Amino acid sequence: MNHYPEAIVKLIRHLRKLPGIGEKTAERFAMYLLAAPGQEVSALAASIAELKEKVKICNTCFCLSDSETCRICSDPSRNHSLVCAVETPADMAAIEKSGAYTGVYHVLQGLLSPMDGIGPDEIRIRELVNRVAAGKVKEIIIATSTSVEGEATSDYITRSLKSYPVKITRIASGVPMGGELKYIDQVTLKKAMEARRAV
Amino acid sequence: MNHYPEAIVKLIRHLRKLPGIGEKTAERFAMYLLAAPGQEVSALAASIAELKEKVKICNTCFCLSDSETCRICSDPSRNHSLVCAVETPADMAAIEKSGAYTGVYHVLQGLLSPMDGIGPDEIRIRELVNRVAAGKVKEIIIATSTSVEGEATSDYITRSLKSYPVKITRIASGVPMGGELKYIDQVTLKKAMEARRAV
Repeated sequence: MNHYPEAIVKLIRHLRKLPGIGEKTAERFAMYLLAAPGQEVSALAASIAELKEKVKICNTCFCLSDSETCRICSDPSRNHSLVCAVETPADMAAIEKSGAYTGVYHVLQGLLSPMDGIGPDEIRIRELVNRVAAGKVKEIIIATSTSVEGEATSDYITRSLKSYPVKITRIASGVPMGGELKYIDQVTLKKAMEARRAV
Repeated sequence: MNHYPEAIVKLIRHLRKLPGIGEKTAERFAMYLLAAPGQEVSALAASIAELKEKVKICNTCFCLSDSETCRICSDPSRNHSLVCAVETPADMAAIEKSGAYTGVYHVLQGLLSPMDGIGPDEIRIRELVNRVAAGKVKEIIIATSTSVEGEATSDYITRSLKSYPVKITRIASGVPMGGELKYIDQVTLKKAMEARRAV
């Protein structure tokens, strides 16, 4: 590492903090940037520098947004009585890419995880309850992951909303499309059996 | 992609240009940077922005350097009569890491590749000949890759230096340490047989 000039050593040290990036890859990135056109490198530096100040959090659904209220929350063609609760903006982006959903979202920004000190107040559950309490929401789809934390969060939300006249649903779990049955784990198969439906 | 705010879409577009980085990984980097401490993100942006202006090319060996003459070329404890010719600064760093070399370097900044329009004038061969012509170099170790281009470049350098009273050597090729013979390709095995030595 100290066989490179200081500026490169520093850059490699910073790049290594990116998820999944080790010393070799960071070195490769640094060499690429050194050889890349100056304009491209400046553009990358600028877009990293301005990231935090330009990206806002939507005041309704807490997703990442260009403005105070996000595009989806301010779109009159979306069904505002249908709210899908997800863990992260990336989960929301994945559902949007599927094109299967026309309602709005609620980004919890985390999952309950007592071991990591994340309780109901650390994530946006109270805000979800407030949205329901306002009376315009007819259905909440809980689309958290099917991990232990995701299931616990789903249960907690269900209990928190019990006293409100709102339909609460959970995304289906089962065998993924294209999945070969023999490779699917037992818990998933059990769930898929339980949730079987008439064809 | 357009499910994210403009600033994130732009960052993902820039990050995708890094070698080996696709949309998913770029998205993961962007999400990481959004959640990372502001100080860390600014430091990364700054070290990318200042990279090109801070890194210089050594006027003797053409490696990456903090100053006009690099640390190795200005180190009196190195053997300046022994010059190792390599393709890139990364190759030089790899040799330095091995700790097996006490001479100086000559970074060719490329390999001959007529198909890509890279002839002897596009890489630093003339500068190598000039260093030898200056009379202080006793041995040139050609440490280019053992690829077609690396071998061609090695041959060209050998011919260019034929008329000078300098010893020209090529790094050994053979079975890599820890390599299992049955998995080694035939060309390497042939080379290893030809270059066998008494024990």
